[in-house]
Amino acid sequence: MYSFKNDYSEGAHPNLLEGLMKYNLEQVEGYGLDSWSEKAREAIKGKLENEEVDIHFLVGGTQTNLLAISAFLRPHEAVIATTSGHIFVHETGAIEATGHKVITVKGKKGKLSTEDIEEVLIYHTDEHMVKPKFVYISQSTEIGTIYTKAELEALSEYCKKQNLLFYMDGARLGSALTAEGNDVSLKDLARLLDAFYIGGTKNGALMGEALVICNPSLKEDFRYHIKQKGALLAKGSVLGIQFLELFKEDLFFELADHANRMAALLRQAIKEEGYSFFTDSPTNQIFPIFPNLLIEKLQATYDFYKWEKWDEGHSAVRLVTSWATPEEKVRDFIKDLKEWKK
Amino acid sequence: MYSFKNDYSEGAHPNLLEGLMKYNLEQVEGYGLDSWSEKAREAIKGKLENEEVDIHFLVGGTQTNLLAISAFLRPHEAVIATTSGHIFVHETGAIEATGHKVITVKGKKGKLSTEDIEEVLIYHTDEHMVKPKFVYISQSTEIGTIYTKAELEALSEYCKKQNLLFYMDGARLGSALTAEGNDVSLKDLARLLDAFYIGGTKNGALMGEALVICNPSLKEDFRYHIKQKGALLAKGSVLGIQFLELFKEDLFFELADHANRMAALLRQAIKEEGYSFFTDSPTNQIFPIFPNLLIEKLQATYDFYKWEKWDEGHSAVRLVTSWATPEEKVRDFIKDLKEWKK
Amino acid sequence: MYSFKNDYSEGAHPNLLEGLMKYNLEQVEGYGLDSWSEKAREAIKGKLENEEVDIHFLVGGTQTNLLAISAFLRPHEAVIATTSGHIFVHETGAIEATGHKVITVKGKKGKLSTEDIEEVLIYHTDEHMVKPKFVYISQSTEIGTIYTKAELEALSEYCKKQNLLFYMDGARLGSALTAEGNDVSLKDLARLLDAFYIGGTKNGALMGEALVICNPSLKEDFRYHIKQKGALLAKGSVLGIQFLELFKEDLFFELADHANRMAALLRQAIKEEGYSFFTDSPTNQIFPIFPNLLIEKLQATYDFYKWEKWDEGHSAVRLVTSWATPEEKVRDFIKDLKEWKK
Amino acid sequence: MYSFKNDYSEGAHPNLLEGLMKYNLEQVEGYGLDSWSEKAREAIKGKLENEEVDIHFLVGGTQTNLLAISAFLRPHEAVIATTSGHIFVHETGAIEATGHKVITVKGKKGKLSTEDIEEVLIYHTDEHMVKPKFVYISQSTEIGTIYTKAELEALSEYCKKQNLLFYMDGARLGSALTAEGNDVSLKDLARLLDAFYIGGTKNGALMGEALVICNPSLKEDFRYHIKQKGALLAKGSVLGIQFLELFKEDLFFELADHANRMAALLRQAIKEEGYSFFTDSPTNQIFPIFPNLLIEKLQATYDFYKWEKWDEGHSAVRLVTSWATPEEKVRDFIKDLKEWKK
Repeated sequence: MYSFKNDYSEGAHPNLLEGLMKYNLEQVEGYGLDSWSEKAREAIKGKLENEEVDIHFLVGGTQTNLLAISAFLRPHEAVIATTSGHIFVHETGAIEATGHKVITVKGKKGKLSTEDIEEVLIYHTDEHMVKPKFVYISQSTEIGTIYTKAELEALSEYCKKQNLLFYMDGARLGSALTAEGNDVSLKDLARLLDAFYIGGTKNGALMGEALVICNPSLKEDFRYHIKQKGALLAKGSVLGIQFLELFKEDLFFELADHANRMAALLRQAIKEEGYSFFTDSPTNQIFPIFPNLLIEKLQATYDFYKWEKWDEGHSAVRLVTSWATPEEKVRDFIKDLKEWKK
Repeated sequence: MYSFKNDYSEGAHPNLLEGLMKYNLEQVEGYGLDSWSEKAREAIKGKLENEEVDIHFLVGGTQTNLLAISAFLRPHEAVIATTSGHIFVHETGAIEATGHKVITVKGKKGKLSTEDIEEVLIYHTDEHMVKPKFVYISQSTEIGTIYTKAELEALSEYCKKQNLLFYMDGARLGSALTAEGNDVSLKDLARLLDAFYIGGTKNGALMGEALVICNPSLKEDFRYHIKQKGALLAKGSVLGIQFLELFKEDLFFELADHANRMAALLRQAIKEEGYSFFTDSPTNQIFPIFPNLLIEKLQATYDFYKWEKWDEGHSAVRLVTSWATPEEKVRDFIKDLKEWKK
Repeated sequence: MYSFKNDYSEGAHPNLLEGLMKYNLEQVEGYGLDSWSEKAREAIKGKLENEEVDIHFLVGGTQTNLLAISAFLRPHEAVIATTSGHIFVHETGAIEATGHKVITVKGKKGKLSTEDIEEVLIYHTDEHMVKPKFVYISQSTEIGTIYTKAELEALSEYCKKQNLLFYMDGARLGSALTAEGNDVSLKDLARLLDAFYIGGTKNGALMGEALVICNPSLKEDFRYHIKQKGALLAKGSVLGIQFLELFKEDLFFELADHANRMAALLRQAIKEEGYSFFTDSPTNQIFPIFPNLLIEKLQATYDFYKWEKWDEGHSAVRLVTSWATPEEKVRDFIKDLKEWKK
Repeated sequence: MYSFKNDYSEGAHPNLLEGLMKYNLEQVEGYGLDSWSEKAREAIKGKLENEEVDIHFLVGGTQTNLLAISAFLRPHEAVIATTSGHIFVHETGAIEATGHKVITVKGKKGKLSTEDIEEVLIYHTDEHMVKPKFVYISQSTEIGTIYTKAELEALSEYCKKQNLLFYMDGARLGSALTAEGNDVSLKDLARLLDAFYIGGTKNGALMGEALVICNPSLKEDFRYHIKQKGALLAKGSVLGIQFLELFKEDLFFELADHANRMAALLRQAIKEEGYSFFTDSPTNQIFPIFPNLLIEKLQATYDFYKWEKWDEGHSAVRLVTSWATPEEKVRDFIKDLKEWKK
């Protein structure tokens, strides 16, 4: 059964595994202080066109989010996120487990606006409530949408004015940066955000996220936090080698672009069949609304999540493509959809 | 420069990388629910001769220790460890960061005895002090020694009697189980301990520790804790495939045995040259006491840690071998030692 | 300026201060193990008609809530509360600071129903989300309403069925128990809840809440938690003596009854003047909706909170009476209201 | 049975209770924002000859210590204390429960030296260990000794040089400041320390400690932390009124002086009887070494702690006097000692 369930069903892009093979028996420093990790950091800084940032390689998204938040905030400070934010919904209270409250606002299309933040600030007036300090957004969002450069500029400016930290969860950043209509670059992110991460796990790595700390005041002692949370990999070169493969040229972008193109094929075909979408996503997650009967038929052959009930007879589903999705499987799905629709 | 600095300077045993290559593009379930992880768990249970335990694959030792302790204890309960215990010295307060105090006793040769524990219990009498609840030992210990079966039996019995949890950090368990003079088996561990882990990172894996929960009352909801601490790998099969390679036959033991034999060669030669040792270790870490001048000469060609000052002219050093240490490099070291000694 | 701002503007009922005076120089055991605390516990057990509960005297409501939640829950377990719940809004993230998420539902009139809880349970399906375990309600609620016995029975039964802990914040429990229309007794609470507290601070004490633990499985080692959170008063008799005064006869109920009667006088008069209310409260907090101009005039003479904007010209305000509110001040307010209304 | 067990067996000095009585029915602001608390803060600042410090009234010593440490430190930073430090021994892991490790050194006579701290700094070299940041001392110490001004100057200078925070637990500060041989003033403390607290509970208050924050960088948002830890008293004037009574003139010092004089009487008489002391304490805790048989006889009539075994036939005991200890009881004890000694 072919799966459109997520973008981490397969292993790593072969180049990354070959990198691991090639350097396997070379003795290197532990804990991310090896030369491969250093080269990978340099490669990423090159793409960011920014030599000032600090880059740390971590193993997963929840780990990266909880590390950044717990390292950057004082105990009484809180996070602002949308109700669909990954840290609020799907991280088993990882942020609260480090002592910090996540304040939510509804947002629009999975996105946060300066008005949303302002509403929170107005409400939080004194020491009987937490102090909002950290704005969390995801790019692409949990429902596949992306922030425009203008939106990010506005948020960044607002956060600076209000003395808030501005952070981006980039689990699917590759897909966002290569999406149709995207006008944001890696360089922009280093300028606009206090910190963000570039997701490897969902874009071709065995595992790995590159946390980029842009704000100098947040850099000090970060490796202590990594170690304290059990996130400092003894064989850190495993992450370094993979990120070097992704960024020494443009593999990271090519993989994301492939996933986006596969999603676009699906989206186009589904539209042509007359279906609408729960959300208008230009990235590698799409959310078509199908009749329940059709969903049942499709699920006999394809694996994917039923996302949300739409009305009595219909539901939104989530279809996810990845760097590894073969075009052939996409064509099969489209063919079957047309067939079973009847 | 050849390094005897630690047992995680190289990547993974080639079989493990080949396993990753071989199954790389197969679509599998995420989060350790894939079939490879399941097969690996079955293989380990076979070696343990125990079908009742729960096994979770995690990424590193600090992560595993902090997860077990924070999941098993209530907020007022504390850990007992020796002053050389890894959780006390080298985990950046990871245990305290989950809210739990680590009570230390001096121990002997890196090992804890029932008398040590009793001393702690006598002292902790009421609610003005933490409640000792969790006994932490390492096998092999941080200074290379190992517990005998009789010692583990005594500790286990004492812990049961005193209603304490008995836990073993097995970062270097392979080396302990294959050490000369060892009389402990994996099966014994599953019987004597409430939980322990089998270290992969320091015995041939890219990363990975297998936490074995033996006490049924500790099993419930453990996966929630893994996720909450950012330790649930999206592509969990990366760990499963590696542990399957290590345990489907006896690779795990063969790799550890190799490391031990390389250490034995060093030990024997160093003894023959008339040097004594800081600690009598039968495992892959040895601690010879060398003249400082000799150490300087050796460090120009070999990488290793100076461990502790012994007297004005001498220091203990730590030499660590691994599954990947070539016998040739050991022979070189011995030759150079003999040469430079003069 | 007379204040209807809250029910903790004055000190303690004179009987309590006289108790403190009377026993002041008697030497007693520290940390709540004194004979006065013991007598107070016995007096409360008498009113509960239950000898099996454990009772601990604590200093404030936030302290009591955070202690109960952190002592009763494992790290991955979460609380369910309404969006108006005190722990969610006005405790500066005290619960999250102990590591636990507070899941909110909207509720109705400040109250939680079994349907609300069920909705949360349906949504929380696996280890990627926290595990709902603790149901938090307040009696009276933060907006003055009270749960009926039938409502509490339903919630209690549902919680038992779903293996949830059922807890009541009783900061204003006295007012609820003596409210017009109340059909709940202290004895009922000990039967229906796993734990709850009886608020002293807002009903005539200098400070003090009596936490009642009904569920035997929650009792063990609770004093360790009190000490660990900095909540174990050295001179615990200060709390014991006050609670003894409140419960040796019926002072606790008389004080609450007075506050309720003062609120009823206000409510009746305000109704007669033709104003409506934000919420239909039978307790010592009432929320009339006044024209903004009238509010301005009243606030020149009386201190109280503007609660919420109602429409362009009107706002809800909060008027709180206490055990110490003189009827004369209530009459003055009513007179002024009638006068300034014109 | 008369008790020399501790200095919190009685209630409050009558002046404090009378203050509470006198202002009892006056309506005041909650949460320590009332005018009495403000006056008390001003009175203390007068004694400190320092208008720049921030002062917060809290309820107990453990609460104050855990609040200061958790508010001032980042997650990876740790505390240095002696092995007899109250936070290490007798606070049920309260500091660790906020996530911070307490590193201990042996110290001398209960006191910490710059050499002790240096030893810790040398040992803590990188991110695999916590980062020492906060130096905790007690004045008087847990065994009754006091730091001289020269010692405090040296510690202060060293901490500044090493970028460490310097904090004093003043649970028994009154006794230290009025001890024979003391050369330290309140003014000195505000100059030398980053923060410290002035203990009320053990010097005549019902409860209450005044935390003094001297270092401006530690002041921001401290009230959020107080609230979050459940330490913000609704009726904060209860603390303010008591501290005003203690400091509007010199009652605080007179009470401590009385306790010291009572201890001096005991000390002198015990010396004259030929007994030696476990520690040379000029404050209100003394630790004579008595024959075990004599201890048994004394304990039939007087309550006090057996502190530590000295040799087979002797033990050190702890005798504590307080502001409320009648000279007559001291005379009785001395008479009985002489009598039973025979």
